[in-house]
Amino acid sequence: MHVIVVYDVSIERVNDIRKLLKKYLNWVQNSVFEGELTLGQMKELEIDLGKVIDKETDSVIVYSINNAVWIKKKIIGKEKGSTENII
Amino acid sequence: MHVIVVYDVSIERVNDIRKLLKKYLNWVQNSVFEGELTLGQMKELEIDLGKVIDKETDSVIVYSINNAVWIKKKIIGKEKGSTENII
Repeated sequence: MHVIVVYDVSIERVNDIRKLLKKYLNWVQNSVFEGELTLGQMKELEIDLGKVIDKETDSVIVYSINNAVWIKKKIIGKEKGSTENII
Repeated sequence: MHVIVVYDVSIERVNDIRKLLKKYLNWVQNSVFEGELTLGQMKELEIDLGKVIDKETDSVIVYSINNAVWIKKKIIGKEKGSTENII
């Protein structure tokens, strides 16, 4: 499935979150990663995220779409990261 | 259609971008807005965004999905903004 992850975490955890997300997904913008994951990988990622963040203050949103063709992506301005697997 | 907008813009334009996005969408996290728009509204928003940003340095990504039920949303940690129209 196609997965988009956006995060809003305290500055001291940004590096850890980025390292974790890079293992699974492509960086697309400041605090946004996306890519294709199996259901198993997504569950793993969610568990790992739960270990890294402070649930009282940090927020991570995982959007998932079964079929990448269902989602359209338009970039206005500069393209900062990877756009693999999606138009 | 269901729309998710993520932005990565220079600090001096953050307020203008937020004001613009608030006219169309709900704030969900730091630099993320989402909501339901008609195709006409989405085109208007894209034109307005193009006027506000510096296309050489800023980046705004507009994801759109025709049917909100095709996208699943999971929040890990704190829920910061609105989650209208989506589970």
